[in-house]
Formats: sequence, C-alpha cells, structure tokens
Amino acid sequence: MKKDQFIIPQDMIYLDGNSLGPLPVAASKRIAQTVEDEWGEMLIKGWNQAGWMRQPSVIGDRIGKLIGAPAGSTTTGDTLCIKVYQALASALNIAPCNRNVVLSDSGNFPTDLYMAQGLLKTMDQGHELRIVDPEAVSAALTEEVAVLMLTHVDYRTGRMHDMDARTQKAQAQGTIVIWDLAHSAGAVPLDMAGSNAEFAVGCTYKYLNGGPGAPAFIYARPDLLDQLQPALSGWLGHEQPFAFDLDYRPGNGIERMRVGTPSILQLASLEAALDVWEGVDLQDIRERSIALSELFIREVEARCPQLKLASPRDPQERGSQVSFHFDNGYAAMQALISRNVIGDFRAPDIMRFGFTPLYLEESDIIAAAEILQDILDNDLWDTPEFKTKSAVT
Amino acid sequence: MKKDQFIIPQDMIYLDGNSLGPLPVAASKRIAQTVEDEWGEMLIKGWNQAGWMRQPSVIGDRIGKLIGAPAGSTTTGDTLCIKVYQALASALNIAPCNRNVVLSDSGNFPTDLYMAQGLLKTMDQGHELRIVDPEAVSAALTEEVAVLMLTHVDYRTGRMHDMDARTQKAQAQGTIVIWDLAHSAGAVPLDMAGSNAEFAVGCTYKYLNGGPGAPAFIYARPDLLDQLQPALSGWLGHEQPFAFDLDYRPGNGIERMRVGTPSILQLASLEAALDVWEGVDLQDIRERSIALSELFIREVEARCPQLKLASPRDPQERGSQVSFHFDNGYAAMQALISRNVIGDFRAPDIMRFGFTPLYLEESDIIAAAEILQDILDNDLWDTPEFKTKSAVT
Repeated sequence: MKKDQFIIPQDMIYLDGNSLGPLPVAASKRIAQTVEDEWGEMLIKGWNQAGWMRQPSVIGDRIGKLIGAPAGSTTTGDTLCIKVYQALASALNIAPCNRNVVLSDSGNFPTDLYMAQGLLKTMDQGHELRIVDPEAVSAALTEEVAVLMLTHVDYRTGRMHDMDARTQKAQAQGTIVIWDLAHSAGAVPLDMAGSNAEFAVGCTYKYLNGGPGAPAFIYARPDLLDQLQPALSGWLGHEQPFAFDLDYRPGNGIERMRVGTPSILQLASLEAALDVWEGVDLQDIRERSIALSELFIREVEARCPQLKLASPRDPQERGSQVSFHFDNGYAAMQALISRNVIGDFRAPDIMRFGFTPLYLEESDIIAAAEILQDILDNDLWDTPEFKTKSAVT
Repeated sequence: MKKDQFIIPQDMIYLDGNSLGPLPVAASKRIAQTVEDEWGEMLIKGWNQAGWMRQPSVIGDRIGKLIGAPAGSTTTGDTLCIKVYQALASALNIAPCNRNVVLSDSGNFPTDLYMAQGLLKTMDQGHELRIVDPEAVSAALTEEVAVLMLTHVDYRTGRMHDMDARTQKAQAQGTIVIWDLAHSAGAVPLDMAGSNAEFAVGCTYKYLNGGPGAPAFIYARPDLLDQLQPALSGWLGHEQPFAFDLDYRPGNGIERMRVGTPSILQLASLEAALDVWEGVDLQDIRERSIALSELFIREVEARCPQLKLASPRDPQERGSQVSFHFDNGYAAMQALISRNVIGDFRAPDIMRFGFTPLYLEESDIIAAAEILQDILDNDLWDTPEFKTKSAVT
C-alpha cells in the first residue's frame, strides 16, 4: 500500500488506473527539475550531462524488471501504436516466409488491429489479418499463421489469455508471438523471458502511472536482437547516430527499436512513477488485486442485481479489472463519476473498474459499491444530464 | 526581441537554438499546471475537461500559422522520424504508380533518409532512394521521380533550397513534394499554401522552443486530405476512436495523421513556447536573423582567418545559421562551450552557430566572436581536455 505516494483528490475513489494512473507525488518535483535544472540550465548539454540520450533504455531496463525481461531487451519511446507496428514488422521478417496470416482476436485493443492493417497494406504482399474470437485462438493456430498478435488482458472484460499456453502452441509450429501488455504491466506478474515469446509491447500510463502520453515500451527476446530489421529505422536506432552517415545501420541490440528524439519531460515523469515500484513484489500486488476484485464482485452482486458480470468469474482468468454489463451502463457510469467514483464505460454496455493495490484499499471498494447501489436503487442515473453521450468516455 | 521571456543562464551566449531552443519562462508554470491541476486533479477526465484530446490539432493549427498553412491542415505528434515516414508513405500512394524513384539530396538530415530506407524496404516494391548533391537536385528531377523529399535548410551549412522553384519544377512533371522544415519553422518566413507542395514535416524543439522531445508536426495540402491513406493507421487517427471498431477508417482531414496517445506534458510545454510567437512577424525575425548572421560572419572573418565560411555567403541562400570549416573545429567548439558560448560541431570539421532573434542581440554576437578569437589566437583549444571526442556533441 503506497497511497501516500500518489495524489488522489479528496473523496475520490479512483477505479480507472487501468486507463490513466494517478500522479505520483514525486513526479511533480522530478518534472520541474528536468524542466528548470536540466532544460533551463543545461540547454543542449542536457543530452549528455543530464543523461537524456540514454534515458529511453535506462527506463526500458527498469520496466524490463517489472515484466520479467533481462537487461538490454526493453526500450521505451513513441506510443503503443508505433511499438505494435515495429514489433509486427520485425516479427514478419523472421516468420516462415511461406505463411501469410497474422492471427489476432476480437478482444485485442482495436489500435493493434488498425496498426496491423496499415502495415500489411503498406507491405502489400498478400498478408491476411485474421481476427477470431478469443476462445477460438488456439484452434485457429494453423500452419498458415506467421504471427500471433494478442493483447494479454482484454481491455473491456479483463479476460486474460494464458500466455504460456498460447505461446507454446504457436511456437510449436513456428509461429512468432507478440504480446501486448498494456493492461498487464504493473497489474499481474509477468515473465517474458520464461514465456519465450519473441516480442512484447505495452504502455506506461496505465498501471505504471507514467502520466498522460508517457512513452510506450518494446521488448524483444535477447537471442533475436541482432537479427531484427527495423521498419521504422530512425535516427536514434542507428548504430552511430552522430556519425550522420547517409545509410542506416541498425543499432546495438534493442537500441535499434528506438526511433526519434525521446520525449524527455514524459520520461522524467515516468522515472518518478517507476520509483514507486522499487521493492514492490508483483506477486503481492496480484494477491491484493484479486482480493479487491473479489470483494467488489461480491458487493456489487449482492447490492446491484441489475448488473451482470462481464469478466471471467475465476480470478485466475482475469487481469486487474472487473466489468459488468448493464443496459444503462453509460448513464450509470456518468452518475457514478458525478459522485466521485471514477470508472469508465465501453460500448455497448460495459461498466469497467480497475483495481490498483498501490493506492486502493477495501474501504474504497465497499464505498464504491454502496454508491453504485444508491444510484441504481434510486434511478439516479435516469436523468438527461447523465444520458447525453460525450465523445470520450 | 523577447529575451525576457526565456531563461538564458547568466553569461551564456546561446547560439544553438537550432538544436534545442531555451526554456520559455512561461513553460515551467504551464507544465506544472498540466501536471498538478490537470493530471493530478482531473485524472482520466483531463482528456475532455482539460482538452488534452484536441490538443494535437489545436497546437497544429498554431504551428500552421507560422508555416503559412491554413487551419485544419497541420497536426502534431510523435517525432519527426515518424512524420517523415507518414508523409513519404502517403506521397507514394498518390504519386504516379509507374515511377519508382524517391529523390533526395546529401544535404538532407540523415534521419529522413533512414526512414525512407526503412519504408521502401518494408514496401518491397522496387523503389530506389536516389541521393544526389544539393546542387544536382533540379537536374535529377526526371520523369522517373515519384517523390521529391528535401530538407529546406541544410542542418550543417544552413544552405537553403529555393522552395518554390524546386516545388514547381517537380510538380510540372507530376512529382509529389515533401519539405522537411526542421531548420526552417520559426527561422524563416514560410508559405506552405503558396508553395503548393503536397507535404511538410518538422520539429518543434529547435527554433520553436518546444523543449526536449517536443512533438513533431505534419502538414498536408488541404485538397489532398481526404484521399490520404495513412500507413501508420493509429487509434487517434481513426474516424471514431471511441467506437472501438475492429476496422480502421481514416479520420477527418489531417486528423488521420495522428497516431497514438499524445504526449500531454510535451504539448503543454510547446503551448507555452508558442505563446511567445503570438504577434511576432516572421519577416521581422528574418531581417534580424540576417543582420545578426552578417554581423557574425564579418566579425569572425575579421578576427579568425583560420575559419572558412561553410555557409552560402548570400544571406538569401541561407537559413538562420552560419557554419565555418575549421580542421580543429571539434576542439575549438569544446573550448568555446567551456567559455559559455554554445554552438555545436558536425563532423568532419563544421562549427555551427544558430541565430535566434527572439533572444539574441548584436552585443551577444560580438562577444561570441571576441571569445572565439581569443581561443584561436592563443591556441586555447589545443589541450587534451578539448580534443577528446564525446559521443554526443
């Protein structure tokens, strides 16, 4: 429990850390230092003196520890979209060349599918993006499949794929595997090295609390690093960025997955956020997350029979979020937010709640369920104010 | 002259605003507000309440004003590398399909060439990246050329292409034109609409003073917007990002050139930096820049005969920087930096100085030349300390 290390507005119960983590207390100061003492005082010299140039991979290694990746196999930068593109392009380069299917599922975050669509269209080599139901992934792993690309934890329901089983089944027939850890990193224990998967990508503004627009990360299995051919062959992924050669030569190891100038202010914020994770055991986080989630399900089911659990009932099959179906879910969530209980809504009818043991405790969970019951029992959601849909929920 | 709106460390003469602009006074506070009042207090609600979601295109339009682009044709995000990739992929989509040459020059910033190499390799359709000398571009504009991709102002010498002449020559035979404005935006008056060029890209951490890792920008000519097919088809470039469809549909106009989650802290910094540009006439900036540059050339040539001008002598053929050849340029630049005159060095022998009238005046220029003379006259650069090359200069 590290609630005192976060800014949580008074009386707010924040069950949306799976969308955007709260501000770590230390981040304000760390960002101000970067702005005033580094940019302000060092100016261009900050790239060396303040270590800005190395920061993406220094931070990458710190994230590596949280996902079970050895040092030198993870770097940060850009957005998750870009990292998905890089991973898939690199995966297709090393996949058996007579295969033309990229397999994913309908529980994948749509961005990943969009980026795959853009890449395959750009490649124009007849690849097919095949999207099946999450339950059908295993059966769909035929010998046509070049790359399996899945999001570990479903953004709507919290359903969690069995990473080891999927990876083994895929690799047994030569399929390359990419995991999107957006809803897993900082939420569940991960062992990327142990999983043997070739690639992983993720974002750092959810459970890792890096802040709005914090950079994404990419992991590649260490034995593959030296053969990866970056599609986004950028300046800072060059072997010698400051030689200013006219030809690209991939940088050393995972460094080649860097692209352009790193976002130094966002990295400063992320650095402070990662400090909170020092000494935290993800097994403990997981136990506490399950305890909080189970409590929430019990409380909601006892108090709000209108809501139907949308997440797997078995906590071992869930990430660190719980979702419910409710026809009037949008309005009910708006009403809940107006009472300072922050979850979110995903169309068509999903009320989604994230559980983040770093700053949530049992009393928050019970209070949230009580307020939800009050809203539902008294039809407090049933007002024009709450029924008007906004563009972003 | 807006020197009071920037933090310039005491006694520093900063001639490297073409690499990284200094900290605007208002940026510290604006960033802190975004961190504490928006992220800290609003958390996930910041995307709507604080306008984060619209910020890339709001800021894009403000940059549009500085480059002569109509509202709705410029957006921000990612890095210049990524924006180059997007522009080139989109350009190749609309170029005559029987042409297979992408033409650039050896004065282009190498990143642009690297990104083009990565894209053409990914496309694997037999395109050739043809790199000629800057002076040979016009003659190389044959009917094989699908896309002409140039950096307007050379990063080493400051040589400036005649944008209108190059664009007209290229377009007369159906070649699509992309301008990289990295060393132009905020440095010279630009009229992208008037130039008729199809695309422009640029960065915001140089003359625009957006801060280390500030997002890049991309412009596309308004009549083309609705036919552009994004290669990097990302979440926030989707027509309805929050519909979570499984298929990508390009967003409205330039919005489709957005990719992933915007870097909100960097945008806050850039927003404050752009406030300084309100009411500034780029024609005035240009006149002052030429006056400062001409003064510097006169002073250096009178005081330091060892240095040979590497930039065009005609100010109309230069951007807002001046470079000199000097065999011991690396060590001399290090010595200059140790005396708090900040320029930079580009291999093999270029000493580079940027002129930024927002915060530089004649007395700075004369003082810089005096110190340079002192270093050269007394061989003060000729010490082991200054002759050791560092990785980043």
